[in-house]
Amino acid sequence: MGQAGWKGLFQSLFDYKTEKYVVAKNKKVGLLYRLLQLSILLYLVVWVFLVKKSYQDIDTSLQSAVVTKVKGVAYTNTTALGERLWDVADYVVPSQGENVFFVVTNLIVTPNQRQGTCAEREGIPDGMCSQDSDCRAGESVIAGHGVKTGHCLRVGNLTRGTCEIFAWCPLETQSRPTEPLLKEAENFTIFIKNFIRFPKFNFSKANVGQMDNRDFLKSCRFSSKNRYCPIFRLGSVVRWAGNDFQDMALEGGVIGIHIEWNCDLDKDASECNPHYYFNRLDNKHTTSVSSGYNFRFARYYRDPDGVEFRNLMKAYGIRFDVIVNGKAGKFSIIPTVINVGSGLALMGAGAFFCDLVLIYIIKKREFYRDKKYEEVRLVGLTLMVQGGWSPA
Amino acid sequence: MGQAGWKGLFQSLFDYKTEKYVVAKNKKVGLLYRLLQLSILLYLVVWVFLVKKSYQDIDTSLQSAVVTKVKGVAYTNTTALGERLWDVADYVVPSQGENVFFVVTNLIVTPNQRQGTCAEREGIPDGMCSQDSDCRAGESVIAGHGVKTGHCLRVGNLTRGTCEIFAWCPLETQSRPTEPLLKEAENFTIFIKNFIRFPKFNFSKANVGQMDNRDFLKSCRFSSKNRYCPIFRLGSVVRWAGNDFQDMALEGGVIGIHIEWNCDLDKDASECNPHYYFNRLDNKHTTSVSSGYNFRFARYYRDPDGVEFRNLMKAYGIRFDVIVNGKAGKFSIIPTVINVGSGLALMGAGAFFCDLVLIYIIKKREFYRDKKYEEVRLVGLTLMVQGGWSPA
Amino acid sequence: MGQAGWKGLFQSLFDYKTEKYVVAKNKKVGLLYRLLQLSILLYLVVWVFLVKKSYQDIDTSLQSAVVTKVKGVAYTNTTALGERLWDVADYVVPSQGENVFFVVTNLIVTPNQRQGTCAEREGIPDGMCSQDSDCRAGESVIAGHGVKTGHCLRVGNLTRGTCEIFAWCPLETQSRPTEPLLKEAENFTIFIKNFIRFPKFNFSKANVGQMDNRDFLKSCRFSSKNRYCPIFRLGSVVRWAGNDFQDMALEGGVIGIHIEWNCDLDKDASECNPHYYFNRLDNKHTTSVSSGYNFRFARYYRDPDGVEFRNLMKAYGIRFDVIVNGKAGKFSIIPTVINVGSGLALMGAGAFFCDLVLIYIIKKREFYRDKKYEEVRLVGLTLMVQGGWSPA
Repeated sequence: MGQAGWKGLFQSLFDYKTEKYVVAKNKKVGLLYRLLQLSILLYLVVWVFLVKKSYQDIDTSLQSAVVTKVKGVAYTNTTALGERLWDVADYVVPSQGENVFFVVTNLIVTPNQRQGTCAEREGIPDGMCSQDSDCRAGESVIAGHGVKTGHCLRVGNLTRGTCEIFAWCPLETQSRPTEPLLKEAENFTIFIKNFIRFPKFNFSKANVGQMDNRDFLKSCRFSSKNRYCPIFRLGSVVRWAGNDFQDMALEGGVIGIHIEWNCDLDKDASECNPHYYFNRLDNKHTTSVSSGYNFRFARYYRDPDGVEFRNLMKAYGIRFDVIVNGKAGKFSIIPTVINVGSGLALMGAGAFFCDLVLIYIIKKREFYRDKKYEEVRLVGLTLMVQGGWSPA
Repeated sequence: MGQAGWKGLFQSLFDYKTEKYVVAKNKKVGLLYRLLQLSILLYLVVWVFLVKKSYQDIDTSLQSAVVTKVKGVAYTNTTALGERLWDVADYVVPSQGENVFFVVTNLIVTPNQRQGTCAEREGIPDGMCSQDSDCRAGESVIAGHGVKTGHCLRVGNLTRGTCEIFAWCPLETQSRPTEPLLKEAENFTIFIKNFIRFPKFNFSKANVGQMDNRDFLKSCRFSSKNRYCPIFRLGSVVRWAGNDFQDMALEGGVIGIHIEWNCDLDKDASECNPHYYFNRLDNKHTTSVSSGYNFRFARYYRDPDGVEFRNLMKAYGIRFDVIVNGKAGKFSIIPTVINVGSGLALMGAGAFFCDLVLIYIIKKREFYRDKKYEEVRLVGLTLMVQGGWSPA
Repeated sequence: MGQAGWKGLFQSLFDYKTEKYVVAKNKKVGLLYRLLQLSILLYLVVWVFLVKKSYQDIDTSLQSAVVTKVKGVAYTNTTALGERLWDVADYVVPSQGENVFFVVTNLIVTPNQRQGTCAEREGIPDGMCSQDSDCRAGESVIAGHGVKTGHCLRVGNLTRGTCEIFAWCPLETQSRPTEPLLKEAENFTIFIKNFIRFPKFNFSKANVGQMDNRDFLKSCRFSSKNRYCPIFRLGSVVRWAGNDFQDMALEGGVIGIHIEWNCDLDKDASECNPHYYFNRLDNKHTTSVSSGYNFRFARYYRDPDGVEFRNLMKAYGIRFDVIVNGKAGKFSIIPTVINVGSGLALMGAGAFFCDLVLIYIIKKREFYRDKKYEEVRLVGLTLMVQGGWSPA
């Protein structure tokens, strides 16, 4: 290529090549195309930009810290325990105030258990016996409470009895409570402090920050009218989750306290506020064997001779899971360009669809097909224009 | 503009403009384009729609509640502890039945520790001494157990000894166990209740819901044949995770119990079932100093004089992390349109590639280039058609 | 259609149809288009490929297990507790070594509380009284410590007093500490073992794996020079989080220890290393009522007569949340094709913009408009070429 050639090449580099269009004076297809354009534009503006806010850069990696504190006391007077007052250290497990905590509402205490031998409870198939050979010494009772000693214990002259076992004796009684011990737990309160941070935008906030009034935090209660108070009455939380507190206190269950931070950081920071909602996480309508929530724990003591004994507690209660979710958005040029670009690309799909209508469906399709497709064929160097069947 | 002009403008608004194509009767490039079209179509149909199900709206923000319950007893007879039976309240820490729990399989008990003075353990560099001045009073032993009192304790007439320290005495013995104390933990069972909810579709399910038979839940065990039973034998879980239970019981470790909910809500709710899999989360082949899993805790007592003493427990065991993942999909028009649209946009890339072949690679490229690019130049108002070098 | 017709149809199926372009010898628009092309190319190469690595398949579903172990002892000598040595079992709650743990730095002990009656603390509005009728028997004191017995206790001949309550007596004193009890906690260390796995790529790694030297792990400390040592001094962690340890020890707080795994699995596995950073998760500048971190727990004892009593502890301290994040990427053909495709589709948007300039903005727009839009009209079968107003 000579110097002139290079110059031509360089000049042609800045020629602008634009697609040649055929204007089809067909009002139907024209209208269809404009309608498609309009829907894509509407979709872009309304859905992509206004609803989804796709012009924003999104941070979903919320850093959250939850600190909870339960308050309240309850008084009980039972034959087993006598007069007793329950405070936070007694009924909240674990006590550290994390995002998952358990409030005991009912308790079956089996006091003064010691390592020893006693009869296995009735109703456990593997613990039933009619003679000593049914209780192989050293074997543990399947789904039972201890290890068989080799003796079959029969009361009076019954033919069937239960194996003697080595266990923590006496065994827990099987009686189910008919009403919750800590009925008053309904009036306990939970104070939830939630600190969040969106690392991408270096934005921090707390759900307790906006209250500069110390007394407000001392006396307020969360309600539909008071949506920024972070103190929740237990009974109300359970009711908002669609359950009755006294029902739930009896058998136990799991309540989710959801905190949602959905922040538009293009607006003022004071408009970034949490929304709370509550639901029951476990399903109360499952089979009876799996309903409710309870667990066993023990407190260990020593008698003056140094022998260990324990109080076994079967605690029923409500577990609260504080679950924090959130995302923040802020205007950013890159997602804006991408979304406008892909919206325009969608217009191409609209044109593709209208072309199909123009070339294959309407009456004068053959005419438009000939105009749209300019056929070229290499015959010497003559150009032949010819109509024909031409799929897109 | 006159009235006629506005009318023309309005009419031309509904003219349909379609791109003009040049039909190149070149079978090679034509075939190439059809192949590209076919692959994009295949990719769209097979990968995007059938495999990835991109026509669905996806909810990945699973709400999950896990309730666990371990069952089983173990009997031990050691010189240190005598005959002893272990039940759930003894070996599960924490006891609340959350998604992370620890089953003690081995225990080194240091009973009756009291605040007092004793000799630091040997083998701790900072605790070694040959004279009193090596033990600065009030300084704590680095990586040791207490605070130096200022005396160097030497046994007999050895020249080297260890500092006297103020600590919980006697100190824990360093002997490592050679076999697990609670070997029988292999037969313990875990009952895992998992309740999930996909908030976007308001769909709830539990892994225990489908069993209407109460007896089934009492006796079943999870296995490859019985994939919907939520009761797991500890030994089997460890084996499925690729480990030997007795090995792991000795040193401890962390096992992940993964529950995956992958639900197609276009199908029936009964087809949305969890899949379980198990793996070991900690790496057993790390350096010896960091292998295994153990922690220390204490039980505090008072003697009749009111002086506090404690039993220090170094517990080895297996931590189980129940990890729930999931997503649900349901047909939605918006992702369907988006995905079809961007599939069609990909065809444009195919055409771009074929154009490059047509214009720059094949033999008759110059001819096609002239036909594709219609050059216009402003000379007065004459139109000049001219061939030339024209990059795309 | 005859046999010839089918043959023609089949042949035309492999005709290649390429868009016809009009070459506009307008250097300004040409330059604009080339600039747009260049920016899109740059965006594709630099942002999409080099920065975002969009040619990779991404796994964000990190499986992580964290095992922590705190070490260190502290000596205190107070009038309330006498000489006392604190070790791990005393000051870490919970003791299991999970990813969230609490180190007690300050403690208010209320020893020997028993169920009984005493006066409510002053300063609680609902507990104040001037006569017995102000204290309705059986009612619990709002925000107080027990249940009213019906008596109003007045000291000497004051007119105002507090109600007598049934509670755990004596009550906790309200005095706030002025300096932390466990000042020495600053020198405690945390050993964090973190095991991760990217399930999609079946890639596992630990933050302790690379140290084959056992002694290194025994003596190293994490610092800016030693970024792979997983042992952290408490005081340093708090300092890196931007706080003073002694300040924080007094009132308590929450520190986040973030571990980030950002792995490019196209590189060698040894280049996949964690990055640590630290911040304070709770906000210390909130209202005084909600600052700090403390909780109450109790240790229960029995006296020789079997009567229960407890030591109530109000623990202030620092909660450490170990938060693991991560993602891994590996080359994959599908995201590469998608991203190249949508980059090319963006070029269409560039052409659209340049067309607008060519047809509506530049001087010779009418000329180019006529060339770009070839108007066809159905008059018999004659073709009329005509200029006019034609929006894109």
